[in-house]
Amino acid sequence: MKMNTKKEWVGALRGALSDQQVSVNETILEQHSKDESYHAASTPDVVVFPISTEQVSAVMKIATEYEVPVVPFGVGSSLEGHTIPYDHGITIDFSQMNKVLEVRAEDFLVRVQPGVTRSQLNKELKKHGLFFSVDPGADATLGGMAATNASGTTSVKYGVMRDQVRDLEVVLADGTVIHTGNLAAKSSSGYHLNSLFVGSEGTLGCFTELTLRVYGIPEFIMAARSSFPTVDDAVGAVVGILQAGIPIARVELVDEPSMKQVNLHSDTSYKEQPTLFLEFHGNAAGLKQDVDFMKEIVAEFQCEEIEFETDNAARVQLWEARHNLAYAYVHGYPGKKLMVTDVCVPISELAGAIRYAREELDAMALIGGIVGHVGDGNFHVLLMIDMNDEEEKTKADELNEKIVMYAIERGGTCTGEHGVGIGKQKYQEKEHGKALLVMGKIKQALDPLTLLNPNKILNTKS
Amino acid sequence: MKMNTKKEWVGALRGALSDQQVSVNETILEQHSKDESYHAASTPDVVVFPISTEQVSAVMKIATEYEVPVVPFGVGSSLEGHTIPYDHGITIDFSQMNKVLEVRAEDFLVRVQPGVTRSQLNKELKKHGLFFSVDPGADATLGGMAATNASGTTSVKYGVMRDQVRDLEVVLADGTVIHTGNLAAKSSSGYHLNSLFVGSEGTLGCFTELTLRVYGIPEFIMAARSSFPTVDDAVGAVVGILQAGIPIARVELVDEPSMKQVNLHSDTSYKEQPTLFLEFHGNAAGLKQDVDFMKEIVAEFQCEEIEFETDNAARVQLWEARHNLAYAYVHGYPGKKLMVTDVCVPISELAGAIRYAREELDAMALIGGIVGHVGDGNFHVLLMIDMNDEEEKTKADELNEKIVMYAIERGGTCTGEHGVGIGKQKYQEKEHGKALLVMGKIKQALDPLTLLNPNKILNTKS
Repeated sequence: MKMNTKKEWVGALRGALSDQQVSVNETILEQHSKDESYHAASTPDVVVFPISTEQVSAVMKIATEYEVPVVPFGVGSSLEGHTIPYDHGITIDFSQMNKVLEVRAEDFLVRVQPGVTRSQLNKELKKHGLFFSVDPGADATLGGMAATNASGTTSVKYGVMRDQVRDLEVVLADGTVIHTGNLAAKSSSGYHLNSLFVGSEGTLGCFTELTLRVYGIPEFIMAARSSFPTVDDAVGAVVGILQAGIPIARVELVDEPSMKQVNLHSDTSYKEQPTLFLEFHGNAAGLKQDVDFMKEIVAEFQCEEIEFETDNAARVQLWEARHNLAYAYVHGYPGKKLMVTDVCVPISELAGAIRYAREELDAMALIGGIVGHVGDGNFHVLLMIDMNDEEEKTKADELNEKIVMYAIERGGTCTGEHGVGIGKQKYQEKEHGKALLVMGKIKQALDPLTLLNPNKILNTKS
Repeated sequence: MKMNTKKEWVGALRGALSDQQVSVNETILEQHSKDESYHAASTPDVVVFPISTEQVSAVMKIATEYEVPVVPFGVGSSLEGHTIPYDHGITIDFSQMNKVLEVRAEDFLVRVQPGVTRSQLNKELKKHGLFFSVDPGADATLGGMAATNASGTTSVKYGVMRDQVRDLEVVLADGTVIHTGNLAAKSSSGYHLNSLFVGSEGTLGCFTELTLRVYGIPEFIMAARSSFPTVDDAVGAVVGILQAGIPIARVELVDEPSMKQVNLHSDTSYKEQPTLFLEFHGNAAGLKQDVDFMKEIVAEFQCEEIEFETDNAARVQLWEARHNLAYAYVHGYPGKKLMVTDVCVPISELAGAIRYAREELDAMALIGGIVGHVGDGNFHVLLMIDMNDEEEKTKADELNEKIVMYAIERGGTCTGEHGVGIGKQKYQEKEHGKALLVMGKIKQALDPLTLLNPNKILNTKS
């Protein structure tokens, strides 16, 4: 950052936007100093609230002229410090760019501004018999979800955020506005910028518009809870279901401690055993055949109870309970902070990886549970940490690292859906090797002054 | 290219590889001077036949040292001049790197060398009850298919080549070897290099190994041919089927002139009317319900005949006939060359785009037919051109351009699956606008000497 120019560049921002759109209010700065994770807070110098692509472009031009770092911000629900401005500067809050711009029902596409949240979008889509599939735990913004390549419970059938993005409008570091894709279902034209920008965590540009793929609400949906004596049995059943080619729409593992949190927080009385939450989408006849087959498979793995939820309200309750699980832990342990591991491994390695995580968790005597999108090989250890207890913090870091190393050594990844932010940066070299140099060259080519969310994903400290 | 060094760099290649792996034989050079398209031929100086990643890396190091252009080559089935070495230099022929290295059935993954062809892979996978979904017309290599982001008849259900690539081993311009991904079903770690390299047409690196997603052979498969009085009716039926949420695995349009070519070439006696070739994958009960629903929809669009092929041999014949259609045209018009348009448009624009293409084709009195992967909005006009007839060539170019402009103006793309090569380069700016500058920066960052397949996709002539 150039010296002694803060007054100048804040003045320039006030010139480009209206006064209410440029805030140095302490409460506002504080709200933009943290995310939902255990990572240390740090305030921006200024928060701006643009309402248009042109305004975002104007902000980026000022940032480039004065060499001020910029962090894009949705609702701050990230879990690895993505939105925390450690280098201060400008935070761009996209909450005022929150319109669903166009629903193209015949094309199964929707065009939205980045500040639209997933629940807001689904409310709008329901009128058209459509839904948006990606459902992280938080009611995140679609801009933030694209920035981290978020996923959730449905990716085993519908894919992750990257699979839904047909086009992004992106403001680059110098203020240039580009489109990364088009409206066609497929393309072999030029380099695939859509997929490069999805998951770039604000380090390559700011998203100002997204065109996303949506789906027709299935004719028939059936949800189920299936309890097992051990986590191993539950994971075995998932592998069996996948091997059998049963087209499952959701399959979530919730371990025994986590089922206890579910019941405490969600006013349910589910059996407190390792449980799979399942869902099937399709037509009535096909589903019946699939479910009958699934029942045979889970029986082979000592399934102790299987409860079907055909009633819509019970089904909604089941998935809300699952989605609120991280918050259940947070509320259950006041004063502690949430640390969530997020590895994803090949399915053949899943049972071993979860067993290893459980054993290490028990050996360290930390508080936590295991949940996961096990159809993808992605699972989380939810750890509740006292940030004033150095020993506990160190143990949690060690556990995270052990689980990450186990995954990477078996062809997996340090993060299946939460992203790198600041928390997973130290594992990037181990995971990507020399490919990290290629990522560095791309970053350098597109953001030569290192202004866009500096030191996230890649270590850009000299 | 540095001056007066050809003898030196050919010598260096002979030093790094064995003598038989470095060819300057005229017949070999001539075989590597063209692809399956109408684009003008041009010979390389040398063709090398590496057998390992190390040898490819050695070749790239020599190419960089002597500043010699390099073109990777699979079987030369590209349709836009991708593999034609207009700047001469080294062609790397991957035909000796043709091993299926590993089948990880439990993970639904396979690891292959780039010279493996799709039919070779499927033969191997069948032993495991698995199949690879992407099926372009040609029996292309998997390396070539990844380089162009190929697709085919099944992408409406299983996705395109990019969706199947879990990891690539890539040799960069300077000989560095990287891996772009991992074995996990999803990842939010680092920039998504997989998708950037898929579709890069040899301009960013050479693929030396691919890890690909494969699928279980469905329990039940049903194919059908459905004839309509007009192309408009057939396209209307496709839109209706998609809107109804019927999970179709394949839906191909073949127009009346093309059905005639099918019958001439494939010894079939299908009705010579605009036809949809359809396929459904699933369980028996679900499929029955889907097909009953589908019948109601096609009936609304004046379907004149619907023939189901439940017999496996008849089903195979149906899809071979479809796959061989381009060759049917080529054999049907000896002396002429094939030019294929390849636009992809949003589904809502498909009927209009095909109608427009047919009208322009008729107005220009060119020989050709329309076929397409209409579930994706992707269609081809197959044109047979006399390359000695300048007027016909000009007309064909004009037609191609008109169809491309129509598509781009409606949110589509100039190429749905064939890639840019040299043929679609002139449309890149119209389609991508300022995003083309970003692509140029990425190319410059990864291939600063412009050695990798120069002047393909991007205009890299100074």
